[in-house]
Amino acid sequence: MNTFGHVFRLTSFGESHGRGIGGVIDGCPPGIEIDLDFIQDELSRRRPGQSKITTQRMEPDQVEFLSGIFEGRTQGTPIGFIVWNKDQHSNDYDNLKNIYRPSHADYTYMQKYGTRDHRGGGRSSARETIARVVAGAIARLVLRKKGIDIKAFVSQVGEIELDKPYQTLDLTSIDSNIVRCPDPDTAQKMIDRIEEAGRNHDSVGGVITGVLTGVPSGWGEPVFNKLHADLGFAMLGINAVKGFEYGSGFSGTRISGSQHNDIFVKDNAGVRTKTNHSGGIQGGISNGEDIYFRVAFKPIATLLKEQQTIDADGNAVTIHPKGRHDPCVLPRAVPIVEAMAALVLADHYLLQQLYTI
Amino acid sequence: MNTFGHVFRLTSFGESHGRGIGGVIDGCPPGIEIDLDFIQDELSRRRPGQSKITTQRMEPDQVEFLSGIFEGRTQGTPIGFIVWNKDQHSNDYDNLKNIYRPSHADYTYMQKYGTRDHRGGGRSSARETIARVVAGAIARLVLRKKGIDIKAFVSQVGEIELDKPYQTLDLTSIDSNIVRCPDPDTAQKMIDRIEEAGRNHDSVGGVITGVLTGVPSGWGEPVFNKLHADLGFAMLGINAVKGFEYGSGFSGTRISGSQHNDIFVKDNAGVRTKTNHSGGIQGGISNGEDIYFRVAFKPIATLLKEQQTIDADGNAVTIHPKGRHDPCVLPRAVPIVEAMAALVLADHYLLQQLYTI
Amino acid sequence: MNTFGHVFRLTSFGESHGRGIGGVIDGCPPGIEIDLDFIQDELSRRRPGQSKITTQRMEPDQVEFLSGIFEGRTQGTPIGFIVWNKDQHSNDYDNLKNIYRPSHADYTYMQKYGTRDHRGGGRSSARETIARVVAGAIARLVLRKKGIDIKAFVSQVGEIELDKPYQTLDLTSIDSNIVRCPDPDTAQKMIDRIEEAGRNHDSVGGVITGVLTGVPSGWGEPVFNKLHADLGFAMLGINAVKGFEYGSGFSGTRISGSQHNDIFVKDNAGVRTKTNHSGGIQGGISNGEDIYFRVAFKPIATLLKEQQTIDADGNAVTIHPKGRHDPCVLPRAVPIVEAMAALVLADHYLLQQLYTI
Amino acid sequence: MNTFGHVFRLTSFGESHGRGIGGVIDGCPPGIEIDLDFIQDELSRRRPGQSKITTQRMEPDQVEFLSGIFEGRTQGTPIGFIVWNKDQHSNDYDNLKNIYRPSHADYTYMQKYGTRDHRGGGRSSARETIARVVAGAIARLVLRKKGIDIKAFVSQVGEIELDKPYQTLDLTSIDSNIVRCPDPDTAQKMIDRIEEAGRNHDSVGGVITGVLTGVPSGWGEPVFNKLHADLGFAMLGINAVKGFEYGSGFSGTRISGSQHNDIFVKDNAGVRTKTNHSGGIQGGISNGEDIYFRVAFKPIATLLKEQQTIDADGNAVTIHPKGRHDPCVLPRAVPIVEAMAALVLADHYLLQQLYTI
Repeated sequence: MNTFGHVFRLTSFGESHGRGIGGVIDGCPPGIEIDLDFIQDELSRRRPGQSKITTQRMEPDQVEFLSGIFEGRTQGTPIGFIVWNKDQHSNDYDNLKNIYRPSHADYTYMQKYGTRDHRGGGRSSARETIARVVAGAIARLVLRKKGIDIKAFVSQVGEIELDKPYQTLDLTSIDSNIVRCPDPDTAQKMIDRIEEAGRNHDSVGGVITGVLTGVPSGWGEPVFNKLHADLGFAMLGINAVKGFEYGSGFSGTRISGSQHNDIFVKDNAGVRTKTNHSGGIQGGISNGEDIYFRVAFKPIATLLKEQQTIDADGNAVTIHPKGRHDPCVLPRAVPIVEAMAALVLADHYLLQQLYTI
Repeated sequence: MNTFGHVFRLTSFGESHGRGIGGVIDGCPPGIEIDLDFIQDELSRRRPGQSKITTQRMEPDQVEFLSGIFEGRTQGTPIGFIVWNKDQHSNDYDNLKNIYRPSHADYTYMQKYGTRDHRGGGRSSARETIARVVAGAIARLVLRKKGIDIKAFVSQVGEIELDKPYQTLDLTSIDSNIVRCPDPDTAQKMIDRIEEAGRNHDSVGGVITGVLTGVPSGWGEPVFNKLHADLGFAMLGINAVKGFEYGSGFSGTRISGSQHNDIFVKDNAGVRTKTNHSGGIQGGISNGEDIYFRVAFKPIATLLKEQQTIDADGNAVTIHPKGRHDPCVLPRAVPIVEAMAALVLADHYLLQQLYTI
Repeated sequence: MNTFGHVFRLTSFGESHGRGIGGVIDGCPPGIEIDLDFIQDELSRRRPGQSKITTQRMEPDQVEFLSGIFEGRTQGTPIGFIVWNKDQHSNDYDNLKNIYRPSHADYTYMQKYGTRDHRGGGRSSARETIARVVAGAIARLVLRKKGIDIKAFVSQVGEIELDKPYQTLDLTSIDSNIVRCPDPDTAQKMIDRIEEAGRNHDSVGGVITGVLTGVPSGWGEPVFNKLHADLGFAMLGINAVKGFEYGSGFSGTRISGSQHNDIFVKDNAGVRTKTNHSGGIQGGISNGEDIYFRVAFKPIATLLKEQQTIDADGNAVTIHPKGRHDPCVLPRAVPIVEAMAALVLADHYLLQQLYTI
Repeated sequence: MNTFGHVFRLTSFGESHGRGIGGVIDGCPPGIEIDLDFIQDELSRRRPGQSKITTQRMEPDQVEFLSGIFEGRTQGTPIGFIVWNKDQHSNDYDNLKNIYRPSHADYTYMQKYGTRDHRGGGRSSARETIARVVAGAIARLVLRKKGIDIKAFVSQVGEIELDKPYQTLDLTSIDSNIVRCPDPDTAQKMIDRIEEAGRNHDSVGGVITGVLTGVPSGWGEPVFNKLHADLGFAMLGINAVKGFEYGSGFSGTRISGSQHNDIFVKDNAGVRTKTNHSGGIQGGISNGEDIYFRVAFKPIATLLKEQQTIDADGNAVTIHPKGRHDPCVLPRAVPIVEAMAALVLADHYLLQQLYTI
């Protein structure tokens, strides 16, 4: 159950403090030019230590491809890859070996498997998402030739909200600040909010908005694998995610059908809708409009302050984690959200080939 | 792509105005006693015409099992079933043959397949959910012996919200009113709101809350197929759903990590958490606490009033649908939400067997 | 585990003496014209009672489509279908309820499931292959437009062998005799041999040869899902099959590599091989030459004579089956072999679309 | 399409002259003790250069585990691994870049993918089977606790046949000679035959017999995924395999049903059959008797002699391969056959858990 996708598939492996994090991408079409700088850039957007508001752990996170690429291009064969773990302070975790940290996966892993690699969260660490970012970058290379653009940005941190429609924002400026919010004023407030959480040895959650442009109409499987269901599944599989909505989302439940319906028109560009409450997807299938969605992230569970919990024997214990941790995962989660969206789109791009014999 | 589930699998078939809606349940363990009345009751909870606030189409929706059951018990072999379509007024749809109705799947089906069965929405009709309710009912029979209970109820209609924690509600009373809200006062307001929408030939959306109790710890696959990711995927696959959140959800993004973390304690009942912002799932795996979630439904797109749109040739046209349609899908969607949750839980119940050799 | 195929998928259901045998075909492209007569003809080639050497049970085996077809064409949506069971003499089997018939699946079903539908073999009956013949016929309609032809014939019955290369035979004459052997002299000997087995209340096995022409080069997945591996898997899933070989097969193990290698040449028709020991498949991928293979069928286990066995309590018992049974399954298995080959080819046809974006 | 197995799954990657051959094993239960020596021994049985009748390429083939193992035991998480490529003489292949070698996958890869890594066969090289041997060894560790034993041996080389029932052989002696035939006299004849082929710069094929003992009754999925169908699929996915038969196989087609049927008896050991033409599988499900099967391997296509063929432009060319190649793959294929059998059995072991809630 460590495989994502139907025909463009990522199988992920690795633990936080094992040899490395890697994966196998199967089903990638042949002939895709591998832009190594692009892939490495995506990894760098995800890695810790990239700014003052992210953890100061320095993980260079260099990808090494193991197969499937020859003379700079994909071969249609499986693409194995690994990012070796370095800078592991595994001993930092010795005292946590028998502790169930609050709102972590320690307890549930033990209940599931009867065993666990406790070092740095093992398989439950967000470090696993490295595999997704690598695969997502390759998916983006596949989608590039279709003119599809995938953008995500931080739209809320704690109670600080970016309250402007995405259409009014300059989405090319997302990476121009360290919080990855394309509105400079709001970005500064978010940075302040994260720094405040850090000073309090606390953490803060928020929302990432995704916008997918250039997706042609006709993608998506209309019953269980609706395009938005696969997108939601992808996002809910990211660590710390608590919710997903697309198009009008939860707020769309408050307006009437006559306001909500998107009226079709035909202009020179073809069939369009006047409004886009549908979020670019109708009946589970893309309609050619922008696809947009929001992803809720809880405040991260690791706090650099004292907390009560129990150990594996049920004894009450007090923990006081030390080390290097993000007070807010949102900025580093932006490339992960983009990667997962890319995996879903590449998958549905290929799936749609099955209808066009 | 019409199969749901990993090892407990439903393959669904059928169109709104074809011969019927059916499915094949594969992977159901042998020896499960088939409680036909229970299955039929679930279908009746879903069917149209059950109350004054649902469409007056009378669809008896009687399930006929075709295989896999012998002497009243499942055999471990695939369970085929069908609910025959009756009371079809297919000719009602002749004038819509070349029309792309606003916010329906008419246009996107054409873009995907190059063809479509336009009668009553064909495969895109919510009538397809009949297959899910039948399969979900059987999943519930599998889960019954584990003491698992699955409840869903309407917690919001338009702007009318049920603002009480689910723990304070009597969830056995959900079906005591026609809107399926377990709070009588709020229920009456919701009914009024739906009737108002009906009088206006308009529609209204809302939220359904699900509560899963008795789920043992250890269920869920921790990376892509987190228990909540599979639940979210299931819900987002229901027609008209625009969002999913579990546990603290979107509102959990606004509180700090120190407030959000659920502190472990051990009492006579075993390991518990003091609070349950986690929504019963940590690291994608159930922790034994209640699992709860919310599902957003948009206002239904079919309105019994004039609307502008285009036909297949791009000409602007005015439609004025007639017939029998729900102004609000929420009450009838309650059993569908429950059914999808049951399919996910039965699937993960079986998946967990793979770790316990 | 009742689904066959990767992207062109058949999910099969039904028992010998239940309501019927059916299935769902998912992944069939839209726009395929449904030739009902062709499908029904394939079913008739499989059905019992078609000649003096097959069982005299009369099963009309009329297919009823339940979904996925509109105005005579596939819609890209799942195609549900059923062949209702008729002429069931279920009571004939009452005395076998607790008996484990030799070389049947009675004992192993009990060991697997702890329960079984004993009537007529239940799910283990070859009647299940009806679903495959229907789906295979639709697969053939998909393949027709590619100019692919699928032929199978009986090449051995007991010790009677058709010892001529398939290229020297008139494969359009396969159905011109009741044993489905395209060589009239050999056919007569086979018929005599089957009638002899019938007179002895015994049974006889044999071999079916398959020939697939017009398959373009490039189909097949080169590692696990080699084209011949999927073909072999398909054939070994047919009741009573004990072996599969393709190209030079087992006899190819006796010649040297220098004799076995197929030399490439290029002529006006393109790249060809001088010989075809490869059986049209190299490295698991079709090379454009004819694909041919042989499938071994054991003598059927049901004998109309006394046999020793045990019952469910382990007591020795004597059985003396009565009723209507084939002394040789080969003639009726020809359309099943063709159907399974068609399913594999349609699946790989679609899979190959994934490489050609 | 580089994943094998339903719930115990191997995803394989790697090319002959890339960075290495590796894989990810997903679905392996937690708590399995990793016997590294055993795994490495299996790899050594497969590796080239192990005896005078195998190629003298020295590939140390040391496995490096990348994830999923902690404190010497599996964790239930995916097990990544790699065997790094060494001793690559990639330049040896430069002159073959545009050549389609007879009966190799060069031409078909180009037809499928439009590109290929030509060095040493790339992905089509039998070196890929390293991944299977590693995963198969872990599967055997899973099966060990069930008392299941998996043995394969060379039973035919060219026209040299081992004509004794497997029950009369000492299967613990398989590795006592370099050809892996448990009959010393026949082994010597086989070795002579292989050396003769080597002297002639030719190659020779043969048959490997597999014997699986201790498999409990009840394993196997009765319709498409019959235990023997999954076994046959596994074997047909091995390079150079042309055929598969189990139990009575092709020769069983020549005897009558009354001779072929296996009579049930009950003794102190439980239900048994007097004979075992069924090969331990009835109706696709194991019956507790030995499972035995035969796998046909063609003579390897690489010959160290002149041969005619064409290049990518269709020009006739003469090739004269040099280098280090086996004249017979059979001895080294023995551990591969065992590995694939182990993967199938571990998979069905787990699948059977799904029926026993």
